[in-house]
Amino acid sequence: MQVLTKRYPKNCLRTVMDQYSATVHNMEQVVMFPSLLRDMQPHAHEHQAQAGAPSLYNYFTMLKAICVDMDQGLQPWEEWQVRMAGYKGNEAVETEEGKEVLGQLNLEAQFHLHLSRLHHILTHLTLKAKEVTRIYQEITGQAM
Amino acid sequence: MQVLTKRYPKNCLRTVMDQYSATVHNMEQVVMFPSLLRDMQPHAHEHQAQAGAPSLYNYFTMLKAICVDMDQGLQPWEEWQVRMAGYKGNEAVETEEGKEVLGQLNLEAQFHLHLSRLHHILTHLTLKAKEVTRIYQEITGQAM
Repeated sequence: MQVLTKRYPKNCLRTVMDQYSATVHNMEQVVMFPSLLRDMQPHAHEHQAQAGAPSLYNYFTMLKAICVDMDQGLQPWEEWQVRMAGYKGNEAVETEEGKEVLGQLNLEAQFHLHLSRLHHILTHLTLKAKEVTRIYQEITGQAM
Repeated sequence: MQVLTKRYPKNCLRTVMDQYSATVHNMEQVVMFPSLLRDMQPHAHEHQAQAGAPSLYNYFTMLKAICVDMDQGLQPWEEWQVRMAGYKGNEAVETEEGKEVLGQLNLEAQFHLHLSRLHHILTHLTLKAKEVTRIYQEITGQAM
């Protein structure tokens, strides 16, 4: 498994994203028959499914979907809202924001919430940095 | 200004992060005397400072600090909480979470909130992907 940690410091978001991508790609290579995970649950020494609980197959598809969204890009805001509205855990995402509790498949909704907010804030900050640069050039009479 | 958009799709978070880094580095190269921005405000055709409002100098230092944090890595959770507690806009971050309003220097607090949450979730999901892989190997009797 190739983990791309050379370019960035160990603890930065880019490194964490690269490690996640590499881990999911490794999982996809190993798990050749995902249907074998359908009735299994992610508890050590207790892999039998409990009624209503997400199976390892649910985790497998969620982990893949999150990786694609992270690598391919953000969905338009409206699409994302429609998708969020479809989650049972949607309400919990809004109200339990301040807690560290990471619910089961609710994780996907939380991931998208923070990804889209960070995307939005960074886009806004990029415009701010351009504005500061431009005004400085105006003040100092530099060519723009 | 070199914008690193080759490796990733246009709309993904990595691209937005790379564009932000490049824009801030360009700003730092252009703004050789940041003190000139001390009494200026980011309104077109109205650069004089208003009492209490953040100056362009405040923006300049905030944009630089965010870039360093994004590139260098996440602070430990405790340090981050202490820093957050120091923000006047801290309360607004918690309660206005669902709104799209991006307040002035409050942006820095929002940025750190979403960066650390995303970091935390991705670290957790990476462990989940490893767990799914390991259990699949156990089930299929593959060497681990």
